[in-house]
Amino acid sequence: MADDYETLDLHADGAILFVTINAPPMNLLGPELVRDLVSIIEILDRGEPYKVAVFRSADPDYFIAHVDVTKIAAYRQEAARLTGEASIALLFRRLAETKAVTIAQIEARARGAGNEFILNCDMRFAARGRAVFSQNEGAFGLVPGGGGAQHLVRMLGRGRAFEVMLSAEDYDAELAEHYGWINRSFEPAKLAPFVEALAARIATLPASGARAIKDRVNAISLASVEEFRRDSDLFGEGARTPEVQQRIRTAIERGFQSRDAEIDASRILGSLDN
Amino acid sequence: MADDYETLDLHADGAILFVTINAPPMNLLGPELVRDLVSIIEILDRGEPYKVAVFRSADPDYFIAHVDVTKIAAYRQEAARLTGEASIALLFRRLAETKAVTIAQIEARARGAGNEFILNCDMRFAARGRAVFSQNEGAFGLVPGGGGAQHLVRMLGRGRAFEVMLSAEDYDAELAEHYGWINRSFEPAKLAPFVEALAARIATLPASGARAIKDRVNAISLASVEEFRRDSDLFGEGARTPEVQQRIRTAIERGFQSRDAEIDASRILGSLDN
Amino acid sequence: MADDYETLDLHADGAILFVTINAPPMNLLGPELVRDLVSIIEILDRGEPYKVAVFRSADPDYFIAHVDVTKIAAYRQEAARLTGEASIALLFRRLAETKAVTIAQIEARARGAGNEFILNCDMRFAARGRAVFSQNEGAFGLVPGGGGAQHLVRMLGRGRAFEVMLSAEDYDAELAEHYGWINRSFEPAKLAPFVEALAARIATLPASGARAIKDRVNAISLASVEEFRRDSDLFGEGARTPEVQQRIRTAIERGFQSRDAEIDASRILGSLDN
Repeated sequence: MADDYETLDLHADGAILFVTINAPPMNLLGPELVRDLVSIIEILDRGEPYKVAVFRSADPDYFIAHVDVTKIAAYRQEAARLTGEASIALLFRRLAETKAVTIAQIEARARGAGNEFILNCDMRFAARGRAVFSQNEGAFGLVPGGGGAQHLVRMLGRGRAFEVMLSAEDYDAELAEHYGWINRSFEPAKLAPFVEALAARIATLPASGARAIKDRVNAISLASVEEFRRDSDLFGEGARTPEVQQRIRTAIERGFQSRDAEIDASRILGSLDN
Repeated sequence: MADDYETLDLHADGAILFVTINAPPMNLLGPELVRDLVSIIEILDRGEPYKVAVFRSADPDYFIAHVDVTKIAAYRQEAARLTGEASIALLFRRLAETKAVTIAQIEARARGAGNEFILNCDMRFAARGRAVFSQNEGAFGLVPGGGGAQHLVRMLGRGRAFEVMLSAEDYDAELAEHYGWINRSFEPAKLAPFVEALAARIATLPASGARAIKDRVNAISLASVEEFRRDSDLFGEGARTPEVQQRIRTAIERGFQSRDAEIDASRILGSLDN
Repeated sequence: MADDYETLDLHADGAILFVTINAPPMNLLGPELVRDLVSIIEILDRGEPYKVAVFRSADPDYFIAHVDVTKIAAYRQEAARLTGEASIALLFRRLAETKAVTIAQIEARARGAGNEFILNCDMRFAARGRAVFSQNEGAFGLVPGGGGAQHLVRMLGRGRAFEVMLSAEDYDAELAEHYGWINRSFEPAKLAPFVEALAARIATLPASGARAIKDRVNAISLASVEEFRRDSDLFGEGARTPEVQQRIRTAIERGFQSRDAEIDASRILGSLDN
């Protein structure tokens, strides 16, 4: 199974599938990673043998950095294989609906679409001092295109969701936990044991119960296909405008999307006006 | 008044009705307790003389343990006296709509339908080190049948609601407060004085204002009858399947629904696969 | 510009407009302040030159105390200039929809409509030991008339929103932060620097992105005009009843709406029955 994946390392432990994102140099969400995520969702949709999936990162600095802004059309097209539409939002919404229970174990940066990926997992647990969260499309003049606004507003409330999206700032694990963005934060050494014990416990539950609970929770709180599609369209249309393209070019010139400089993405994004 | 109740001790203090759940051996939600809760809701529906009800437990270990899994048809039928439907969900939703303001003072375990009872009270305050919360129907392959999913998702957000329902774990008062599951937690000695002062203050408010506020809040956040009924139906249908019946039998063999062993319900529920 | 305002001090810093509420003796929301807020919203609706507005108070004790209960018809009429309807709720909802990003910096008491004003700002940051929050219309037998219930239920969850509105109590900055009522609290000396840095950062974002994000967040979480209007009507109709008028008179006799005595509004409001 693992041989089929360019950007993911897979490890199965009974009914638990550990999926480690490994897309050097910095875990960008480009066509290859989208293609592999499509394949994973197809596996998780079966509901067996895997009842739980845990998503991790092989990169100590980047969980999923964000989309590859130089390949927007290409990675979106990869998503269409699953959903029939060239949209990351609809792909991620399919992740939220998949039969297996999904847990994000975050020990590095998850910005932009990386943050939207974890928001569309069922649960989120993060390492203090290491995880970083940001929904920063606003710095380019864009709305989040992968459902981020839908989840952030419903989980954090409008005041905190506004702050997160309008500041385009980095948030650490403690503040993300305080805001309800993630379930809980842990000291780094305690994170993996907690997630593994939780995954093992969920794996002992009858699959029928887990699915019924997912269906009910999604019926209550998962925004509609139309809402996700609208976010996706606004992002896609905005990204093609000359103004946004100019800001993307400026950001790249200043180190955005290069591994070392982007560690401090907050500074880069705050400077695009100058 | 008190003579009419098998499972409740009542104490009135002006416009405040203190309702102490006292259904030995472990405050199971069986036909008797449901019958008495129906009577209490009928009193609270009048809006006078009681403007506030405080629910407490006489059992130091169990607030409401959960439903009596051996009497599902019987206790559901008792609920029909108030709502016309054999459903705990619709009974609890009626509690959420009653004219009096309802406060749950939790100093012991509130699992399953016990947790759903407090979720359908207007407010929840708990004692640290003593209160335990769990929405654990998933361990049997069931969805919560009394509106638990409706309230948990809206109050905790989908990530934490997933965790609570899919883990079927016990949560203490501090974590429940952190997750927004309860209003606040207190040291045990400070809980009753706080709740009594709050109840006394609310009792000084004009009843018309309290009712208007309840109506507005319910219009915004109380899930519809259809949603509660759907949860109830899913629970009821699921509970009749051979798979769920088998898990219930296994749980009972291992101590579920027996006073001492169930203190550690988390362990029992995690072992049903073995 | 500043000369046109009776109750507001304005200070512009690039794309940021600092609006300081200065309506002695205690920043009541009366006809003059409503008239000036209408003018400010008209400016913010343009989206330029101001991309961000920060609302502060010149009074160290009162941010906005609450409405002037002796002038309800008059201040409501001022709101009609902007919305065509004599309703504070619809005025505040327009504030929530204005093009500029709005931040409330709270260092004093914000009760009743004062609290609803900040709830209709995009974000809220407060000074520990100084800010006080209360949604206390219930003490008069009224529902909040300016959208307070709409926002509190969605941001705090129904349990905490019930507590806040049914107790009519004062809440400090730490508890308000804990409940999700405000974004964050800070030591007094750190509040203004934080807000100014955040405003400056947001001002560097493309206005198109900020507006698109506001539109999306409002589409998800801003209650409808009908819901705001209903709250406003209930408040207006209730305020004209003899019972409510009597409670207002009693409150005023006991110091409500007088600068010094109202510092402890909680005590006054808890005594109206006696």
